[in-house]
Amino acid sequence: MTGIAILGNGTVGSGVEELINKNIKKIKDRTGEEIRIAKILVRDINKHLGQRDASLLTDKIEELFNEDIDIVVEAMGGINPAYDYIKKFLNMKKHVVTANKDLIAKHGEELLSLANKNQVKLHFEASVGGGIPILKPLSECLAGNEIQCVKGILNGTTNFILSKMYNENMGYDEALKIAQELGFAEANPESDVMGYDAARKLSILSTIAYGKKVDWQEIRTIGITEIDETDIQCAKEEDCNIKLLAMSSKEDRGIYAAVRPVLVSRGSQIAKVEDEFNGISVEGDAVGDMFFYGKGAGKFPTASAVFGDIVDIIENKGRKMLFPVREKAEVYGLWNKKSEWMLRIKCKNRVEIMCALGELFSKCRFSNAKGKDGDEVVVFVESESEEMLDVMINKINNKNSILAVKKFIKLDN
Amino acid sequence: MTGIAILGNGTVGSGVEELINKNIKKIKDRTGEEIRIAKILVRDINKHLGQRDASLLTDKIEELFNEDIDIVVEAMGGINPAYDYIKKFLNMKKHVVTANKDLIAKHGEELLSLANKNQVKLHFEASVGGGIPILKPLSECLAGNEIQCVKGILNGTTNFILSKMYNENMGYDEALKIAQELGFAEANPESDVMGYDAARKLSILSTIAYGKKVDWQEIRTIGITEIDETDIQCAKEEDCNIKLLAMSSKEDRGIYAAVRPVLVSRGSQIAKVEDEFNGISVEGDAVGDMFFYGKGAGKFPTASAVFGDIVDIIENKGRKMLFPVREKAEVYGLWNKKSEWMLRIKCKNRVEIMCALGELFSKCRFSNAKGKDGDEVVVFVESESEEMLDVMINKINNKNSILAVKKFIKLDN
Repeated sequence: MTGIAILGNGTVGSGVEELINKNIKKIKDRTGEEIRIAKILVRDINKHLGQRDASLLTDKIEELFNEDIDIVVEAMGGINPAYDYIKKFLNMKKHVVTANKDLIAKHGEELLSLANKNQVKLHFEASVGGGIPILKPLSECLAGNEIQCVKGILNGTTNFILSKMYNENMGYDEALKIAQELGFAEANPESDVMGYDAARKLSILSTIAYGKKVDWQEIRTIGITEIDETDIQCAKEEDCNIKLLAMSSKEDRGIYAAVRPVLVSRGSQIAKVEDEFNGISVEGDAVGDMFFYGKGAGKFPTASAVFGDIVDIIENKGRKMLFPVREKAEVYGLWNKKSEWMLRIKCKNRVEIMCALGELFSKCRFSNAKGKDGDEVVVFVESESEEMLDVMINKINNKNSILAVKKFIKLDN
Repeated sequence: MTGIAILGNGTVGSGVEELINKNIKKIKDRTGEEIRIAKILVRDINKHLGQRDASLLTDKIEELFNEDIDIVVEAMGGINPAYDYIKKFLNMKKHVVTANKDLIAKHGEELLSLANKNQVKLHFEASVGGGIPILKPLSECLAGNEIQCVKGILNGTTNFILSKMYNENMGYDEALKIAQELGFAEANPESDVMGYDAARKLSILSTIAYGKKVDWQEIRTIGITEIDETDIQCAKEEDCNIKLLAMSSKEDRGIYAAVRPVLVSRGSQIAKVEDEFNGISVEGDAVGDMFFYGKGAGKFPTASAVFGDIVDIIENKGRKMLFPVREKAEVYGLWNKKSEWMLRIKCKNRVEIMCALGELFSKCRFSNAKGKDGDEVVVFVESESEEMLDVMINKINNKNSILAVKKFIKLDN
């Protein structure tokens, strides 16, 4: 008998509860093991009384410490008190499954060390890509590969907003409002729209992919709050979509890692990731290019990933942990591949800027767009690296006055 | 120390050898276990002498039976003698990893039972989708789901041929010849172009997905040998691509399973799977739609999957086996979802056929295409099921003479 406690009974917690109850027989047939939900921690038990069978519920964490529990599912979200609870349970030699990317991005290494010390598991497949199996395939199935790069749409909220802006010509504010109404975005959307959520997920993915700790706070992060109709329009004219990409790659200098809006060719797999879906491409030296696509959030997709972790624990009780990674990666955020860029240069004198651009860049195409106030140059240039590009822009700025520059990498696939 | 024997030193075998040697240190760091290649079985040792270090080679299978071996990688292909060897090794309590879909589709259940009896593993991730992690994600990560349907491009050879025909306006014979020259198709391409290879892979996938044995020989299989320029042209006019899809789904009556050329909307993920790539979509009741994409064949993609299986065995020595499935599925091949179809009807009197179609189908659009000899009606009709469609076609045929009918399902996603 495997006893499972669930911390939290919100969207994720209740999804996990439902999925466990639905699969009791299947797991018994498959593993010979009976699973049961031993206890569910809720914030305020009075809210739930009368609404459901309350015999499993408690709002006292201490009750869980006395219960006969093998696996704890943390579905509370946020850092505290989840962090303290998980530490306590790991020290009690309970396996832990969590979907909490904030917590794993911040305290993952410490918690994994603690799990190792206590010879129990800490699994967090649902923390990246929601229902998409990505952490396990990456760390197990692709173990023979040196991972070269990871590139993905890891945040469904921003992808929903960008899809609305692109496909239905909405403004950012309007699209955000609809996302909030539909429950895709929170009242305070900062973590999503500023790209922090994607950066946390990229940190988890990259740490597993490259075997060195990629600190999420060192990841260069540009959100979508500045994306406007001109960006969308110019992307369309290039037969491109605009996506908030979380990208990392293994380089001689260290790990390149950044979250930023990018122009992606409409023919690419990643451009087809619409609305609240996630898509992750991985390149390994042996396997080549791979792509994983699915629902990155939501009650049952998340519960599906949590449940996969539970089954893994039941089936692999003797198994060694692979993590944690202690060595820190050298992280930098300047794109260093030869690429085409779309630049929107706000300036006082368009003609001067255009002349300067034409002189400095051998490959240089001007768009007809001029921005809302007619004071912009929109241009496509090729550069060996972002560093080189910045040098060129500075050169222009030294001679002619540039008011603002917006840069988009343009990717073909 | 884990000793590994490799049966075969062709493309897959030599790729596995290379990947093992490259990852010895990584596996030691990760699992604490040292791996080494103990022996490699080749057909004729004289062919290899002088070309490489021959100390590991043997052409005598008996030598492997005496060697200190924990894991056997079967990379010979074909049914015999691979089948006999694997049985022998499983009975000797050796773990086995294979990429051999022919063998697994034919003898998978028996071999899995034998592995179970001997408490060793039989892994075959590389047998479906090449380097794409699909069997493990399906059976482990998605364990909480009831899988509703599986739909994929599982054969790189036919996808390469169809891509050439679609993108470069080649004829079938010319595209096949190029595929053969590039090594994507064998001298005798029957197994690929008739859809048998895809049917074998669909059988393996479906058996895991639905927990019932889906016999590959019961899968309705239509290959690509009859695809011609008119099909391609009509697909293009509908903004569709033509792909050889392997599809199965869980239905009240049993398991629908078929391999057949299908019109897929150009905007779909599956239509973006080009050349020798594979793409597999899976729908689970909890997780929703998922999609996996990558290289379905080739030296290192296949070796990558084999290596993942080796690591799984090293890390999970105590683990229970999940398979085999003993209950047989009721398999049928008539599409029973409401869909649009493209029909090419060869006939003597086009006008009569068009009138009959217009009378029988409430939704009916005619294409301008008339076939090479001008004796065809190309029409798009909607039908509740393939059975209903066949009834309608028979009705028409009873009144007016139909010489031949070619049917394509048209899928929107």
